[in-house]
Amino acid sequence: MGEPVKAFVPGHITGFFSVHTNSDPCRAGSKGAGITLSEGVTVEITEGTGVELNGSSIEIEPVENVLASLGKQVKVCASTQLPLGAGFGISGALSLGTAFATNDYYNLGFTENELIQTAHVAEVTAGTGLGDVVAQARGGIPIRTEPGSPPHGQLDGIPSYQQIEYITLGRLSTEEILSGDISQINTAGEKALRALKSCPTVNNFMDQSFAFAQETDLLPESLLQIINEVASHSGAASMAMLGETVFTIGNGLSNAGYSVSTSSICHTGAYLHT
Amino acid sequence: MGEPVKAFVPGHITGFFSVHTNSDPCRAGSKGAGITLSEGVTVEITEGTGVELNGSSIEIEPVENVLASLGKQVKVCASTQLPLGAGFGISGALSLGTAFATNDYYNLGFTENELIQTAHVAEVTAGTGLGDVVAQARGGIPIRTEPGSPPHGQLDGIPSYQQIEYITLGRLSTEEILSGDISQINTAGEKALRALKSCPTVNNFMDQSFAFAQETDLLPESLLQIINEVASHSGAASMAMLGETVFTIGNGLSNAGYSVSTSSICHTGAYLHT
Repeated sequence: MGEPVKAFVPGHITGFFSVHTNSDPCRAGSKGAGITLSEGVTVEITEGTGVELNGSSIEIEPVENVLASLGKQVKVCASTQLPLGAGFGISGALSLGTAFATNDYYNLGFTENELIQTAHVAEVTAGTGLGDVVAQARGGIPIRTEPGSPPHGQLDGIPSYQQIEYITLGRLSTEEILSGDISQINTAGEKALRALKSCPTVNNFMDQSFAFAQETDLLPESLLQIINEVASHSGAASMAMLGETVFTIGNGLSNAGYSVSTSSICHTGAYLHT
Repeated sequence: MGEPVKAFVPGHITGFFSVHTNSDPCRAGSKGAGITLSEGVTVEITEGTGVELNGSSIEIEPVENVLASLGKQVKVCASTQLPLGAGFGISGALSLGTAFATNDYYNLGFTENELIQTAHVAEVTAGTGLGDVVAQARGGIPIRTEPGSPPHGQLDGIPSYQQIEYITLGRLSTEEILSGDISQINTAGEKALRALKSCPTVNNFMDQSFAFAQETDLLPESLLQIINEVASHSGAASMAMLGETVFTIGNGLSNAGYSVSTSSICHTGAYLHT
């Protein structure tokens, strides 16, 4: 206690997913696949109370859940260059970063798996996310083969090192979509995961993500137009689940003439730093 | 195929371990704990044959095993700043880096877990290592709670971001020690793991590593003198398993007046890069 503690957590774009409910929130979550980004959220923990993101006070239930679970009060100051509510896993990053940094600030002595579980349960309970935390703890291009946090959830990954491009048009509410009818999502998500496992490449990840977006009716017309334009330039793009964001691995968006934000695949999961 | 492919794999110092044999090499391995280092091995794969490390031709069985398992011939050019045969997991890094880069070079379409399994089996079969590969694939301060490669092995981690210092006096043969009587190693290793799980902190990792080194009679007098000197300056050091290397988390060695090599805890596991 005393010196501020910082944690970095990568952003995470989900390409496709299926929802797996369970009365035990450690076993609840999602299966699917996504990309972690070298851009993410930096969380700084100091003495005090309240949560700030990019200098503005916010109320964010999963972070409150993490702190309640750890039994500690802290001030959380977070910053990110990623857009909010646009499918980059900001709430998961805030939750996981708060768990890692608060554990260190108070020398609580939890392991990484225990802190991942704490942040995962906080997100599941708040309804703000189902699979971001475990993906963000891992890094790379995570495939979530079994839902839930350690020791229940299982992850694999697609080895890659390419550039990511994205365009964000607006926000979508994860809570609203997850509280609606998810049978169509689950059918399409399980199908995409089976197809990705049979051919676990970056290109197939993009194909399965786009098939999922179409089959679930989650894809707004505005995003479909961009994806089609990328395809007409021989690129492959899809929609970030859940945000009004189009992403591509490689440079499909800029090749199609769009003005984009760029990132790269994150080699690291969440970590403490000075 | 065509362009060279590079992979980076962090170095790994094991603090303590127990040996778990199994007729299935995916289930064989070690439990224990260690530290991954931001210094490691860079492996570059091109067309051709043979293995070079720091410009010199070497024969290294686990790398040959990886290539036989993938059914491919490549030229492996590796470089590292870490000392060889001194407990830094160089053979594991060469094996895992070769697996990651060859998969990409030939577009073989294996997942990260499958490549980790390939490299782990290659090391176990060659008798050159039991737990380095899975630790090096993860990064951080890995606790190997169950032996073996994915999907059998299980890992956790201690969150930390400190500096590492080390001194290397010479080499030890992993093969020789692992082929000797390991009952004392297993008793001490299981005891250290139980103690670390009950208090998973960096300080306790160092304490358990030193207890293990003493109880197994693996600790040479020359290294014990250095560790005692660090302790007399209120530091905690131990021996890298298996090499004639003393390491510390923090700056215990330099505080005691030693001229040291420094590194830091690696936030990443193995990854491909440009």
